Amino acid sequence: MAEPMARKLYDLLGADNRRYSPFCWRIRMALAHKGLDAEDEPCGFTEMEKVAFSGGRTVPVLVDGDEQVRDSWAIAEYLEEAYPEAPSLFGGAEGMALARFVAHWCDTALHPPIFRLIVADIFDVVRPEDQGYFRETREKRIGMTLEEARGERDRWAPRLAAALAPLRAQLGERDFVAGAAPAYADYAVFGAFQWARCSSPRPVLADEPAIAAWRGRMLGLFDGLAAGAPALDEAA
Amino acid sequence: MAEPMARKLYDLLGADNRRYSPFCWRIRMALAHKGLDAEDEPCGFTEMEKVAFSGGRTVPVLVDGDEQVRDSWAIAEYLEEAYPEAPSLFGGAEGMALARFVAHWCDTALHPPIFRLIVADIFDVVRPEDQGYFRETREKRIGMTLEEARGERDRWAPRLAAALAPLRAQLGERDFVAGAAPAYADYAVFGAFQWARCSSPRPVLADEPAIAAWRGRMLGLFDGLAAGAPALDEAA
Repeated sequence: MAEPMARKLYDLLGADNRRYSPFCWRIRMALAHKGLDAEDEPCGFTEMEKVAFSGGRTVPVLVDGDEQVRDSWAIAEYLEEAYPEAPSLFGGAEGMALARFVAHWCDTALHPPIFRLIVADIFDVVRPEDQGYFRETREKRIGMTLEEARGERDRWAPRLAAALAPLRAQLGERDFVAGAAPAYADYAVFGAFQWARCSSPRPVLADEPAIAAWRGRMLGLFDGLAAGAPALDEAA
Repeated sequence: MAEPMARKLYDLLGADNRRYSPFCWRIRMALAHKGLDAEDEPCGFTEMEKVAFSGGRTVPVLVDGDEQVRDSWAIAEYLEEAYPEAPSLFGGAEGMALARFVAHWCDTALHPPIFRLIVADIFDVVRPEDQGYFRETREKRIGMTLEEARGERDRWAPRLAAALAPLRAQLGERDFVAGAAPAYADYAVFGAFQWARCSSPRPVLADEPAIAAWRGRMLGLFDGLAAGAPALDEAA
């Protein structure tokens, strides 16, 4: 038997060791929830050949002994199944299915307006050697230059406010998305705000007291795991 | 001790005994899930004095022995607590909290575009004696006449398509919103489509095969409880 490999998380790397990938934050929080350490394997946008072994060129990728898992949801499912004795990320089959709905809601309703608000700021914290790649791919995605995106970003603030309606209602009634204690649904949503916090000086939750208070609770979890990340958005 | 009162569900009544309240459908399905019968107590829009005892003037209201519960979410919580031996609506604490998120998503993201698509059609299936009330309150809510709403409703179809993104993704992966079997999260979402189906000839799911297939499964539950309701939308 070969000696098991260490557990490694491949994470997106920005300038000055910034970590702003919303999907990687989901997994950093999920690992901490499970009480699991993982070696840090940072990859810049143009270094994704490092994870080609996983069958894709995106992070997060988790290597755990002989297992290789890519995609944040697949990693969360893997962690729940591989570590059933550790605190549950889902609280059962229904909780798991509905956490997946929350993650889909993040990806389709929450990320798009946040992306349009912060995309020009992200450029400023991308590693210099990755800026060309970032500009080319993101300008193609949004159909305009980053400078144009900066100029029109205020148009997206009301769209973000509208998209936040179910989250605002949910957190007006309970401390965490998943109820009395945080679970994967919280980490899925939190990733979006940590993406903004670690890449943009824009306080995206300035007018959202219930969500901002929850974000504060999330930043404090696991001995301040997320609070300790280099941030730009200190205002909200 | 007085003899316990029968269980009664106060439901919204339309013309020709149509039942299209999305919130009442949530509870009709939840009662069936729990295997509970309830006497039918229909109320037209202008008959809400019938439920004034509940502290409000909206339905659903459930009377169960000595208990009176108003508001669909409060009724669902009540049923789960009062009938713990019957099949669970939530599958645990996390499932309950996340079902509440799904219900908030319905209320804030899904209902508004559906309402704008069908509001003029609803008018046609409101009881004649309720049409004046309906027109006055709904025209005030949307800031235009019902005729104007009918004229501009096609503008709302792409907004509904955008709002459906997380549901489309969820039902592309599993049979029900809550996973392998239906639960309250499904009933919350289903109410919105039953609202449309029972009040409008417009096939709101014509271009949504995964969601339409799920709606078909929902219509068949509990011996076709929902399929048996008088419907206008037979096309999708």
